[in-house]
Amino acid sequence: MYPRKLTRSVITNPDYPVVETKGGKLRGLWEEGVFLFRGVQYATAKRFHMPQPVQPWEGTKEAIIYGPVCKEIHTPIAHDEYNVPHYHYIQDEDCLYLNIWTKHIEKGVKRPVMVWIHGGGFSTGSSIELYAYDGMELCDFGDVVVVSLNHRLNCIGYLDLSDFGEEYRYTGNLGQADLVAALQWIHDNIDAFGGDPGNVTIMGQSGGGGKVNALIQTPAADGLYHRAVIQSGLMTGSKDLLPERSKALGRAVAAELGLTQETIHEIETVPYYILARAAQKASKELGVGWSPVKDMDYYYGSGLTNPFREETKKIPMLVGSVLGEFDQNYNQVYAPGSKNEWDEALVNRLFDERFGENAQAVKDAQRKAYPRAKVVDAIFTNKGGRIAARDYCFKRFEEGCAPAYNWLFNLECPLNSGTIPWHNAEEAYMFHNACYLEASYIPGVSEDLQDQMTGAWVAFAYTGDPNHVGMATWDAATKENGACMIFDVRTRQEFHHDDELISLLPDKPIMGSNSRAPETTFGGGPRQSL
Amino acid sequence: MYPRKLTRSVITNPDYPVVETKGGKLRGLWEEGVFLFRGVQYATAKRFHMPQPVQPWEGTKEAIIYGPVCKEIHTPIAHDEYNVPHYHYIQDEDCLYLNIWTKHIEKGVKRPVMVWIHGGGFSTGSSIELYAYDGMELCDFGDVVVVSLNHRLNCIGYLDLSDFGEEYRYTGNLGQADLVAALQWIHDNIDAFGGDPGNVTIMGQSGGGGKVNALIQTPAADGLYHRAVIQSGLMTGSKDLLPERSKALGRAVAAELGLTQETIHEIETVPYYILARAAQKASKELGVGWSPVKDMDYYYGSGLTNPFREETKKIPMLVGSVLGEFDQNYNQVYAPGSKNEWDEALVNRLFDERFGENAQAVKDAQRKAYPRAKVVDAIFTNKGGRIAARDYCFKRFEEGCAPAYNWLFNLECPLNSGTIPWHNAEEAYMFHNACYLEASYIPGVSEDLQDQMTGAWVAFAYTGDPNHVGMATWDAATKENGACMIFDVRTRQEFHHDDELISLLPDKPIMGSNSRAPETTFGGGPRQSL
Repeated sequence: MYPRKLTRSVITNPDYPVVETKGGKLRGLWEEGVFLFRGVQYATAKRFHMPQPVQPWEGTKEAIIYGPVCKEIHTPIAHDEYNVPHYHYIQDEDCLYLNIWTKHIEKGVKRPVMVWIHGGGFSTGSSIELYAYDGMELCDFGDVVVVSLNHRLNCIGYLDLSDFGEEYRYTGNLGQADLVAALQWIHDNIDAFGGDPGNVTIMGQSGGGGKVNALIQTPAADGLYHRAVIQSGLMTGSKDLLPERSKALGRAVAAELGLTQETIHEIETVPYYILARAAQKASKELGVGWSPVKDMDYYYGSGLTNPFREETKKIPMLVGSVLGEFDQNYNQVYAPGSKNEWDEALVNRLFDERFGENAQAVKDAQRKAYPRAKVVDAIFTNKGGRIAARDYCFKRFEEGCAPAYNWLFNLECPLNSGTIPWHNAEEAYMFHNACYLEASYIPGVSEDLQDQMTGAWVAFAYTGDPNHVGMATWDAATKENGACMIFDVRTRQEFHHDDELISLLPDKPIMGSNSRAPETTFGGGPRQSL
Repeated sequence: MYPRKLTRSVITNPDYPVVETKGGKLRGLWEEGVFLFRGVQYATAKRFHMPQPVQPWEGTKEAIIYGPVCKEIHTPIAHDEYNVPHYHYIQDEDCLYLNIWTKHIEKGVKRPVMVWIHGGGFSTGSSIELYAYDGMELCDFGDVVVVSLNHRLNCIGYLDLSDFGEEYRYTGNLGQADLVAALQWIHDNIDAFGGDPGNVTIMGQSGGGGKVNALIQTPAADGLYHRAVIQSGLMTGSKDLLPERSKALGRAVAAELGLTQETIHEIETVPYYILARAAQKASKELGVGWSPVKDMDYYYGSGLTNPFREETKKIPMLVGSVLGEFDQNYNQVYAPGSKNEWDEALVNRLFDERFGENAQAVKDAQRKAYPRAKVVDAIFTNKGGRIAARDYCFKRFEEGCAPAYNWLFNLECPLNSGTIPWHNAEEAYMFHNACYLEASYIPGVSEDLQDQMTGAWVAFAYTGDPNHVGMATWDAATKENGACMIFDVRTRQEFHHDDELISLLPDKPIMGSNSRAPETTFGGGPRQSL
C-alpha cells in the first residue's frame, strides 16, 4: 500500500497502462518499474449465492484504487498496530476484488504467479489489511506476478444454510468458492499481465494458510494452482467443521432472525449488521465459528487430519511457523523492563509459574534447541503451530506427495530491546517489505534476511524448490530427517533441533494467563461486536 | 503514518524515549532522527460535556500507537483514494488524542510548535486521515515540533442542546472546546517535547481551516497560539450558524429520539449509530449542518464576515487556496482522454456549455492570468475559495491586523497526463511529503517546490513572516497590492493577476453538472448514512 518514497513519475494516463481482460479493458498505473492494477473485480455475487463471472463492459475502467474489503463482524481495536500495522479500508459486501503487481503487460512472458490469500481466520482481514502484504517489492525482487485478493468472510462467507434448500447447498463454503472464482479469473486472464496460468503458487498466513490447506482439499480448485505455501496456518487440536454443526448454526441464525423455511429468502436482504448480530449470538451459543464445512462434496477436510487427495499430491509445499506466534503477540508484558535484562531470579520465578516441575527441563531443552538465544525465550515459544507445520510436512511425505519444506521464522526483533517474533512477523520478510516495518527492522540484518527468505519463496514459485544460491541448503522434511530451515540472523538448516523442547512446553496458550498488553492512554480490550 | 523505508533501527525501549507530562510518563519512539509520540490523550470527555483534564497516572504509558479517531457519521467510500490517499483508522467516541513529532525531548529547547487541525468539515476526518498529514518530514525539515490532533465531530461535537439546560450550554461548540483543550495541553506540556509554548502556530485545511478561522473568534483560545494558517478553509457565501437554528436542530434530534426535557439525559448513553441516524434525519429536514454556533459567548462568528476581535489582531496569518479545489476533485471526467490533448472544437464546446456568452471573455482572461497554462484550465478553476482567501487577507489589513499573506497552489499534477490541483493537493507540499504521493509527484519539481513551500510555512512558524532565501519575495496582501504567492513549477509573486478571470467565472460549483468521476469496476456514489 502507499505511500512509499517515489523517485520516478507515476504514470496513469488515459491510454496507458491498459490491459485487456476477458471482461474488458482495465487501466492501471506504472510506478517505479512495476505495473499495478488495484480493485479488479474477479466475480460478482448475490448474498448467499455462488460467485458469478463479471459481466463484460465497453470502454476502459480505472483500476488504480483498491476495491472495498469484506464487512468485518467485529469492530477493530488498535492493540497490535505497532507490531502489525494495518491498512484499514472501506468495507462492503461487494468485495470480490483482487490486486495485481507485475513488471510486464504483454502476453507470453509467463512469469510465475504468486497469489496471496489473507489471514484473519475465516472472519476478518483483507488483501490489503496489513502493510506487509504490499506486493510491489516482491514483484520487483523476483520478477513475479503478485496477486492479492478479498473474498467473503464470516457470516456472509461461511454460514451453512444448506438445510433450507438446494439453492443454498454450498453456503457453508462460499468464501472458499470465491477463492476458486479468483483462481479461475487468474487462470483466464493472467497471461495478459505477464503471468503464467500454468504456474500459480497459492500462499497464505494464519487464516490464509488455513484457506490454502482447505483449497488443497477442494476439488473445484484442482488445476488452478501448482504450488502451495502455508504460513502459521495450522494448529494442533483444530477440528474440521462437520455439516451437522454448521447446519445447526445456520438454523440457529435463521431462528434468531425469526425466519422459517417459507421466509428464508429474507436473509438475503436483511441489513448486514442485523445479520451479523444474530450470527454472533448464535455462534457464541452453539460454540461454532466461521470456517469451511467438511461436506465431502465441496471440501474434504484439513490435510493435517484427513488423507490428502490424489489430485493434489503432486503439489510441492512450503509449510512453516513463527517462534512466538500467539504466545508473543501484542508485545506482551510479564514484568517491567526488557526480557533480555531480566535477572535470574525473575526468570526462575516466571519459569516456575509457567512450567512448574518441568522448569529445569525446559531450560536445558531450550539451551539445546537454541544455544545462542536467551533461556527466557522459552516462555514466548509457541508449541501448537510449530508441531502442526512440522507434522503436516511429515504427513505429506508419508502419503507420497511432492516435497514439503518446513521452516521456522526466529528473528528477534528490536522492540523493547528484544522481542521474540510474533504471529505475522515473517510476512514482511517473504514479501521483501522488512525495511518498512518499525517493529522489526534491523539495519544490515533485515536486508540480508529478506533477500534470503523472499529469494526462497520466489525460487519455489519458479521451480517448486526453494533452494537458491544465497542461502544454506534446504531439504524437504521427513519424520526421519526432521529438517527445518531456521530464518534468523544466521539462516540455517537444522534437524530435529527442538523435538525435546516443544514436547516439554505446555499445550495451553499463554495469552490471558499472567501476561498482559502494555498500557496506553486509551483502552485496548477485545474486539467489540458490531 | 508508516510505513516509510527505514535506514536506522527504530528505538522504543522500556526506558527510552520517555517524556514526563503533567499527567505522567509517556514512552514514544525514535525513528530516523525524530521522536514520535502517538495517541497521547489530551483530555477526557463525557458525551455532550466539556473536555476535562486527564487524570494523572503512575508508571509509564506507551504512546507508540495512534489513538482512536472520532466516529464518522457517514460510511466512507473509495472514490478519491488515488488523488487523496486516506489512512482509515479505528473510530471511537473516546477520541481526544494528539500526536507529536519532535527532534528534542529535553526542556528549554523551545522550537516552534506547528499544530495541525484536520479537515472534513466539522463532521468527518482525523489527525491521521490523510497520508499527507504525516508530521515526520516537516519536523525533520524545519526542526519544529509538529502536533496533530483528533476532536469530537458531527453530532457529538456540534449538536446544540443548550435549550435543555445550563449543563448543555456549550454543546454546540464542544468540538471547538476540544481544540481549546488540546491547545491548553500543548501550552502546559510541550516544553518537555522541545517545543515553545510561547510560539504556537495553528494551521488547518478545508474544515481544519474553518476551525482555525473559528478559533480566532473564540476567546477561550486567546493566548494559546501565536500565528495562524488557513488553507482552503474559507468559501464565499458560507453563513454563520446562529443559535436559533442550531437550537432547533438540537430540539429536533431530541424529538426524533423521543426525548423530552425530563428524559434528555438519555441522549448521553443512546448508542452512537442511533443518535447519528436521528441527527442525520433532523439535519436533512431542517437543512442545518454541523458547525460552530455563533453564540457571541463561546464563538463570535467567521472572520470573513464579522469584525475581527481585538485580542487576535496581532496574529499574523497565511491564507490561501488551490486552483482547482472542489471543481477538480476526484479526477473528474468531461470528455475522453487527457484535457491537455483535447482539440479546440471540444474545448470550445465545453467553454460554451460552462460559460455561455462569457466563453470568449473567460478565454482571454485565462490567458492573461496564466499565460503559460492551457486555456482549458479555466473549466477546472475554483472561484469561491480563491475570492474568500484573498478577501480574508484584505479584511485583516483593513481592520489593522498583523500581516496576512495570500497564496495560491497551482501545480499541474501528472495524473491523466496533466490534472489541475484539487482540494487537498497542497498539503503534501507544506508537510514536505510530496515525494510520497502517487498522484502529484513530479521528479525534480516536487523536491524543489516542497522545499520552497514547507520552507515558507516553517519560516512563518519561526518568525511570523514566510519569507526565506529559497523563494521569491512575498508581500503581505492588501486590497491595493493584490499580492499573491503562486506555488507552481516557477513559484512567483503576482499582483491582481486573476481579478478579471475570477470575476467572470460562474458562482455555481461545477460538481454534479456535466462532470463525472471515472469508472471503476466497483461503485462510487455518495457517502452512505450509517
